[in-house]
Amino acid sequence: MKLLEDRILSDGEVIGGKILKVSNFLNHQIDVAFLDQLAQEWKNRFSGSKITKVLTIESSGIAIGASLARALEVPLVFAKKHQSSNVNEEVYSSKIYSFTHDQYYNVVVSKKYILPGDKILLADDFLANGNALKGLIEICKGAGAEVVGAACAIEKGFQNGGDQLRKAGIKVESLAIIEKMDSNGIEFRK
Amino acid sequence: MKLLEDRILSDGEVIGGKILKVSNFLNHQIDVAFLDQLAQEWKNRFSGSKITKVLTIESSGIAIGASLARALEVPLVFAKKHQSSNVNEEVYSSKIYSFTHDQYYNVVVSKKYILPGDKILLADDFLANGNALKGLIEICKGAGAEVVGAACAIEKGFQNGGDQLRKAGIKVESLAIIEKMDSNGIEFRK
Repeated sequence: MKLLEDRILSDGEVIGGKILKVSNFLNHQIDVAFLDQLAQEWKNRFSGSKITKVLTIESSGIAIGASLARALEVPLVFAKKHQSSNVNEEVYSSKIYSFTHDQYYNVVVSKKYILPGDKILLADDFLANGNALKGLIEICKGAGAEVVGAACAIEKGFQNGGDQLRKAGIKVESLAIIEKMDSNGIEFRK
Repeated sequence: MKLLEDRILSDGEVIGGKILKVSNFLNHQIDVAFLDQLAQEWKNRFSGSKITKVLTIESSGIAIGASLARALEVPLVFAKKHQSSNVNEEVYSSKIYSFTHDQYYNVVVSKKYILPGDKILLADDFLANGNALKGLIEICKGAGAEVVGAACAIEKGFQNGGDQLRKAGIKVESLAIIEKMDSNGIEFRK
């Protein structure tokens, strides 16, 4: 999506060739009107899917998830992160490895909020190795809910999470896919 | 605000007389359209304030903050929590004690996103002892920004954070103030 690619080029910052900072519009300071435009694009790409809920993970997925839930007129559910493995029978949980923080954490969702028969659209700000989405997919499976697809803002195409998920049959709609980035610039997938 | 009080009465759950769970519409599953209605009420209550940014703390303030930022047509900034005291000169920080988790944590905001002259509306889902808001106020002071007020959904009036802040001159607008709650029910401040 050209709108997002242009914003990344104008406002994003590549640090050390590996990290893309977009904290001035996506995940620290948030341009809500801009997220609403992304949400409209996802709404078009998932039209006809009869989505019943949007599911994301705290924290940086919440604002995107809220824009998406608003556009689709469905509730937003966000999975909570716990460092402890102290989960109980009232929640679905999944263990996720975070490369960013080099640690495992549990994500949990109350069994009240993901129900058998739900048609779930996953949402997140970034997609790199795909571990967060895989955790959410595991939670949906545990609940007997259907994963309609995943709405990600920025995909690091040079890591392989998005393509792995597509191969596994998940409809992954990333609005900007970065093929390559370094101090010279950012190259998007065409 | 009757809308929120009614929703708390119909969907809230008082646990052990002290904890109010509203996780089916406010801070786990989120009714975005409902938050938009709350945001309109705050917009009216802070009309004429020339707010430039909404500031909240991850995670449960983000969805409310996003609705509020949308209604006011300004950016949302969310402060990030760190358990470590490892903060640097690029951020404003404040140390907050959490009664819920019985631990101190740091909240940080990049110096890029709160500027001298900004007129900041604070936002959060709950107001109890007021520690989170006091931390955000300290951050705004450090930045030379003005705190226009605080928009909180649910205030536990029987703890004294809200009234302390009002005495200190902060315009605190909570949309439901609980005076008393126990297994028999919830009583709101009139």
